[in-house]
Amino acid sequence: MATAEQMTIATAEHEHKLDQLAEVAINVGLGLAKGQELVMTASLDALPLARKIVEQAYKAGASLVTVLYNDEQETKLRYKYAPDESFDHAAAWLYEGMGAAYKSGAARLAITGGNPALLANEDPDKVGRANRAQSKAYRPALELITRHEINWTIVAAATPAWSALMFPNDEPEVALAKQWEAIFKTTRIAGDDPTSGWREHDKKLIARATRMNEKRYSALKYKGPGTDFTLGLADDHVWMGGGTTAGNGNYCIPNMPTEEVFSTPHKDRADGVVTATKPLSLYGSMIENIQVKFEKGRIVEVHASKGQEVLERLIDTDEGARRLGEVALVPHSSPISQSGLTFFNTLFDENAASHIALGQAYSSCVKDGDKMSKEELAAKGANDSLIHVDWMIGSGELDIDGITATGTAEPLMRKGEWVE
Amino acid sequence: MATAEQMTIATAEHEHKLDQLAEVAINVGLGLAKGQELVMTASLDALPLARKIVEQAYKAGASLVTVLYNDEQETKLRYKYAPDESFDHAAAWLYEGMGAAYKSGAARLAITGGNPALLANEDPDKVGRANRAQSKAYRPALELITRHEINWTIVAAATPAWSALMFPNDEPEVALAKQWEAIFKTTRIAGDDPTSGWREHDKKLIARATRMNEKRYSALKYKGPGTDFTLGLADDHVWMGGGTTAGNGNYCIPNMPTEEVFSTPHKDRADGVVTATKPLSLYGSMIENIQVKFEKGRIVEVHASKGQEVLERLIDTDEGARRLGEVALVPHSSPISQSGLTFFNTLFDENAASHIALGQAYSSCVKDGDKMSKEELAAKGANDSLIHVDWMIGSGELDIDGITATGTAEPLMRKGEWVE
Repeated sequence: MATAEQMTIATAEHEHKLDQLAEVAINVGLGLAKGQELVMTASLDALPLARKIVEQAYKAGASLVTVLYNDEQETKLRYKYAPDESFDHAAAWLYEGMGAAYKSGAARLAITGGNPALLANEDPDKVGRANRAQSKAYRPALELITRHEINWTIVAAATPAWSALMFPNDEPEVALAKQWEAIFKTTRIAGDDPTSGWREHDKKLIARATRMNEKRYSALKYKGPGTDFTLGLADDHVWMGGGTTAGNGNYCIPNMPTEEVFSTPHKDRADGVVTATKPLSLYGSMIENIQVKFEKGRIVEVHASKGQEVLERLIDTDEGARRLGEVALVPHSSPISQSGLTFFNTLFDENAASHIALGQAYSSCVKDGDKMSKEELAAKGANDSLIHVDWMIGSGELDIDGITATGTAEPLMRKGEWVE
Repeated sequence: MATAEQMTIATAEHEHKLDQLAEVAINVGLGLAKGQELVMTASLDALPLARKIVEQAYKAGASLVTVLYNDEQETKLRYKYAPDESFDHAAAWLYEGMGAAYKSGAARLAITGGNPALLANEDPDKVGRANRAQSKAYRPALELITRHEINWTIVAAATPAWSALMFPNDEPEVALAKQWEAIFKTTRIAGDDPTSGWREHDKKLIARATRMNEKRYSALKYKGPGTDFTLGLADDHVWMGGGTTAGNGNYCIPNMPTEEVFSTPHKDRADGVVTATKPLSLYGSMIENIQVKFEKGRIVEVHASKGQEVLERLIDTDEGARRLGEVALVPHSSPISQSGLTFFNTLFDENAASHIALGQAYSSCVKDGDKMSKEELAAKGANDSLIHVDWMIGSGELDIDGITATGTAEPLMRKGEWVE
């Protein structure tokens, strides 16, 4: 009998799709340059995909691929046995090392696929402190990524624990196979040439972002069940979508899948009530039925039917953690939304629905923002925080208007779809 | 059907011994302090032992354990697909990070157990360049270890590829079980209280080193089949054995198993011919039937029936790579020797036989050496190099004399055993 951990899919068809996913991840998503070093992170459960990606990276001319594997069982052992005071400690040396790698020219690929509920039953205080320590330690390196100074991307691997959460009524083998199918489909791995499909898709997202930039809206107005919300956009905001040329000159598409166009909201201009339309998996905890009230950009009330304490700790991380750093628009007809699945993973769920993010803004979503100081960015309205957490507010029942500089409302999305 | 990779042993008896090995590794070998951070390295094949050690580390009060897993399949992919010029590149950022961890107080545990013949069929030029780049990048961190500034230790895990090399005529499952048995036995994991056994053993090794220090020999003279060799000892050399108190104040026994007493030879005082008594597994290549001629400390001739090119590249690493940095005495009756097994792994094979090492000397084997500059150490005769490679020259047929300051020869070992 195979344990869940040893469970793998060994068909030729599956191998072929894994190869395609790895190839697209390296050549389209990451845009790895010949001779470039690559730093990867992956859960041990993602080993089969990680090896395929390593192979494609070397085929594309990588000088060296270092995979930092994370073992969830070891994380659980820490929560079970480590002294309480140790949870304020993070491996600063490792994150500083990763930052040094990025500065010396390395690209960055993350495979997501851990157990979204790994820490659901652990002490929220320990979880919160450990995450805060880790965020703080990783911040200098993460800034190189949020500023798009290097090429980076994220892809997903199906894993036993994750698939069990997505398909709780199926046998483990069936659940894993279904999850892989869902990942391949939503990540546009289909047919003989997924690379060309991705290039086409990228063009469409860029065209949508261009149209949004031409509009120069000052705010967006959201109306839907439990949502009545106006969100101002940052001064000189820029809408982005699809790929981007990183500071190191390499073109990358940072998320696979990606269905969004996104920009920077104004940190002081959010008012009203927003209700999440999907559960949020946060650092191994599930947060459900989030409802938040904003005043002048700041969260003044927060409710969740599950995980409220984790959410409260999150927004207490720093002042910026209770303000918004990203606004993103996704049509309800996106492949992820159409799959009808909840992935309990931001990479997918944020591409199923329009969303907003608490915390750090992307400086590249402000005109010339990558060259600005923190103070200059703040003056434009871009938020600053240790965290960046997306949560989904879109649905087939959400209407969004664009508010022009003169205050006119233009219909932008109706019942979750683009009006034009 | 289980693939070799998925093969594990799941008996309660095996679990119990793994627990004991992990406990001894953390509490006796590493001497982990409460609140101390731990940096581990392990092959993915060693995962079951790695998890046990992580558990024991947290139970002993570790603040955080970071395991850097190495995947041999990914290493092979590099040799298969990466561009030739990339083999001069190493993950400097990671080694610098490890050095930063040691400096900030972390302990270091390595699990050895990779495939000793992993790179046997790869291009020796690539293997040599990759190892040189890695040695250079790791050097600053390694110096903190060779100077015993932090507590560290090495233990072994049986792995499918390694056990297949040791027990080529057995079925994979049988070979793996036999190798675990050999590791437990030679690492003194027996009975209910291996910890006490280790403390006793440690005392005996320290007593032997003390006796050698009282002798103040100026040189050792080796006679055996194919060996007629005189090796001068460094001025103010110190014999060590068993545990040591590291610079950070923690007592550790750096190798498990350990059966040796060792010191620093004089880099300019080795003359004659030495024949290796065991094959040497070096960076994934096997080197067999090594015979070396020394003149005034320097290798002037080298022969090997297999792997000669790898050996030649090794001693060309730098000037210190063709001189000796360690001399160690091990009785032929050691448990490793008595097992009758060749492990193809230095941690074990060096504890089966008296040996010498090419390359870097341990500064702690020179009186006050840890406080000396490179120049001061060199003046005492301590060697300096990027490499440190042990090779076995002892056997049941080797006689060793100690040469006193006045030139008198005293019998030290006869037929591989201590005379007194």
